[in-house]
Amino acid sequence: MVDLMAREEERDVERLMTEIGRQARGAAAALARAPAGARDAALEAMAARLRAHAARILAANADDIEAATARGQSAALLDRLRLDEARVEAMAAGVEAVRALPDPLGRVLAEWTRPNGLVIRRVSVPLGVIGIIYESRPNVTADAAALCLKSGNAVILRGGSESYASSRAIHACLAESLVQAGLPPEAVQMVPTRDRVAVGSLLGGLGGCVDVVVPRGGRSLIERVQRDARIPVIGHLEGICHVYVDGAADLEMAERIVLNSKLRRTGICGAAETLLVDRACAGTHLGPLIAALLEAGCEVRGDAAAQAADARVQAASETDWRTEYLDAVIALRVVEGVEGAIRHIGAYGSGHTESIVTADPAAAGRFLEEVDSAIVLHNASTQFADGGEFGMGAEIGISTGRIHARGPVGAEQLTSFKYQVSGSGQVRP
Amino acid sequence: MVDLMAREEERDVERLMTEIGRQARGAAAALARAPAGARDAALEAMAARLRAHAARILAANADDIEAATARGQSAALLDRLRLDEARVEAMAAGVEAVRALPDPLGRVLAEWTRPNGLVIRRVSVPLGVIGIIYESRPNVTADAAALCLKSGNAVILRGGSESYASSRAIHACLAESLVQAGLPPEAVQMVPTRDRVAVGSLLGGLGGCVDVVVPRGGRSLIERVQRDARIPVIGHLEGICHVYVDGAADLEMAERIVLNSKLRRTGICGAAETLLVDRACAGTHLGPLIAALLEAGCEVRGDAAAQAADARVQAASETDWRTEYLDAVIALRVVEGVEGAIRHIGAYGSGHTESIVTADPAAAGRFLEEVDSAIVLHNASTQFADGGEFGMGAEIGISTGRIHARGPVGAEQLTSFKYQVSGSGQVRP
Repeated sequence: MVDLMAREEERDVERLMTEIGRQARGAAAALARAPAGARDAALEAMAARLRAHAARILAANADDIEAATARGQSAALLDRLRLDEARVEAMAAGVEAVRALPDPLGRVLAEWTRPNGLVIRRVSVPLGVIGIIYESRPNVTADAAALCLKSGNAVILRGGSESYASSRAIHACLAESLVQAGLPPEAVQMVPTRDRVAVGSLLGGLGGCVDVVVPRGGRSLIERVQRDARIPVIGHLEGICHVYVDGAADLEMAERIVLNSKLRRTGICGAAETLLVDRACAGTHLGPLIAALLEAGCEVRGDAAAQAADARVQAASETDWRTEYLDAVIALRVVEGVEGAIRHIGAYGSGHTESIVTADPAAAGRFLEEVDSAIVLHNASTQFADGGEFGMGAEIGISTGRIHARGPVGAEQLTSFKYQVSGSGQVRP
Repeated sequence: MVDLMAREEERDVERLMTEIGRQARGAAAALARAPAGARDAALEAMAARLRAHAARILAANADDIEAATARGQSAALLDRLRLDEARVEAMAAGVEAVRALPDPLGRVLAEWTRPNGLVIRRVSVPLGVIGIIYESRPNVTADAAALCLKSGNAVILRGGSESYASSRAIHACLAESLVQAGLPPEAVQMVPTRDRVAVGSLLGGLGGCVDVVVPRGGRSLIERVQRDARIPVIGHLEGICHVYVDGAADLEMAERIVLNSKLRRTGICGAAETLLVDRACAGTHLGPLIAALLEAGCEVRGDAAAQAADARVQAASETDWRTEYLDAVIALRVVEGVEGAIRHIGAYGSGHTESIVTADPAAAGRFLEEVDSAIVLHNASTQFADGGEFGMGAEIGISTGRIHARGPVGAEQLTSFKYQVSGSGQVRP
């Protein structure tokens, strides 16, 4: 009996999701035809409404926080979940920043004329309907909706159950703003249930009504999405980012870049997790680099050479080379030059972001060519791995996939294209 | 006992596939570092070897044909399967044409400087390892391998079981040519078993060793791939392509484009399947268009208006609007102007290729903007939906997906990119 009821509820959720998909597809068609002015007006209105209704959003957030506290959630989760006036203001400002971006649609990406006179243009168009699955950060509701709307896509948002009330209050502001701008409110929909069956439906593509799904969250979420999705996924796994200090590195610059890459913020995917030091400069650079990290409060787990250089270094195990600490901990290994660094990164990296510090252009050139990661830097911090820092405006994440979007995924990356061909009666021989 | 043996064989195939994947990943790394000259030398050698070993290939093909005939395969399949000297020469010429394309790797797709002095370059790189699953056309073995090699990708080929011997003979030429050019022969591998378990393994990604899978074949193959793949797919479903003859169309041009779109070759995905005629010109254009089609040997299935215009028109049912005939049959419907055409295509099209015939630039502009297909043409035949006709060289297919590649998929579309960032010691504030 209970099973039958559960099955019945499941079917209800599936029916609900199918209807959401159908509405999203209709809204996407309207959005693709809407002028940039209407999309921008909606974004403008969204920013204003988020500010005007901050109290309502904060009250909903207080309910979420209370429930999460009662369930004994971790301090880290509570911090991600918590909103305050400054965070609501940051959300509104983020929406305004997205509005200020150039229109990513209708760009002529390429244009050429064939010998038979056909003129072929590749023109950017929306992807269509995007599903976003995220965890406890309620601000993703506004960030993701803004990026999708800017790029002319309808979006179906499925946030974490902990942030349900907060996301709902934020979503209400967004939907009202769409109506105000004359756009269909179904362009930004939020899954109105905490039921996990909804995630499965979304990953199934809602009968062809969802074009791509973007997961934003921790490893287990991303893995579930990659395992269960029947539609294309734009996502990233971990950021096991490396800084390689080459034999020809300036020590002062190396210290600055290593400390910033590791410690500016430890919880972001572009934070460095492993430091590789060229054996050629280990004698001069290893000690000071370790000392600087330890003094800054970072735990160092190193190989034998690193432990020999400083007794405070703990022993690294094989696991450390594969770990995304997201904390004030760094793995440290001495390698044989740029070739050794490239080999280590190839074996243990996650293809996210790596940096070389060196004054030798040949070593830098080889590293930038041969390291197969979304972002490779020379003499710069790995923490620049960010859409905003790239000048792309807000981002929905950093993709470590190789298909469609790689690296920061902003409004421009949420587009597809089509070919417009102009003829004068040509037929194919 | 039999089940146990079957299970054991399945595990053997899985182990074999895993090893193929591992070797492909290693070859991809070598290929990504190989200069364009080495890739082109291998392609040159491939073309020469296909010509030199034509007799060996044709003998293997004769075995395939004999076996397929004995199994009572259809004439259409036998035609796709059959090779002769001209087809082997066409394969060799196709490989040479791919060699002659510009190098798709190392292109600077974009470059900009940030206010902090960081120089950011987006540079094209290979996708990695590509799995190609195809049916009975043995020439796909050479075509697909050439495109993958040109774009620096390792490839795992899984052909149809009917063409197994032919594909093996072709593959031998390719592998020998890689060795001759100093490249790893594992850059082009062919699955050495007809066991269908191998397809499942490939669609699972071989433990992260395959980056993308490209199906080439009929609907059931594409659907299986889209259902079972755990990795990104670049594929296309059907080409339900439309020609819309607008009220402002020149009748002579409309006839020429309609006949060519439908009948130049009926079996290709860019062949038109439905003709839409504006009610505004039905009185003058409908009769002559129907007569021209019928006289050219094309069956016409139309709505009431079309039947009224010519008694030889058979009645179309709802199914006809959704059918990819791939034959000398066309569906015909009278619609209310460009708006009616756009609505019909939105409801029944497959997002492949559509053409408008009109002398009215406003109608053409609206059609090209609002029809949401990979290729939209004005005053040109839908049969131009082809990588070669677009000037992109050979193609692996026409993608109706919206992610990564849309439209013709050539060597350039088989690339990804990375960001190379050059700094002078910048850290993130």
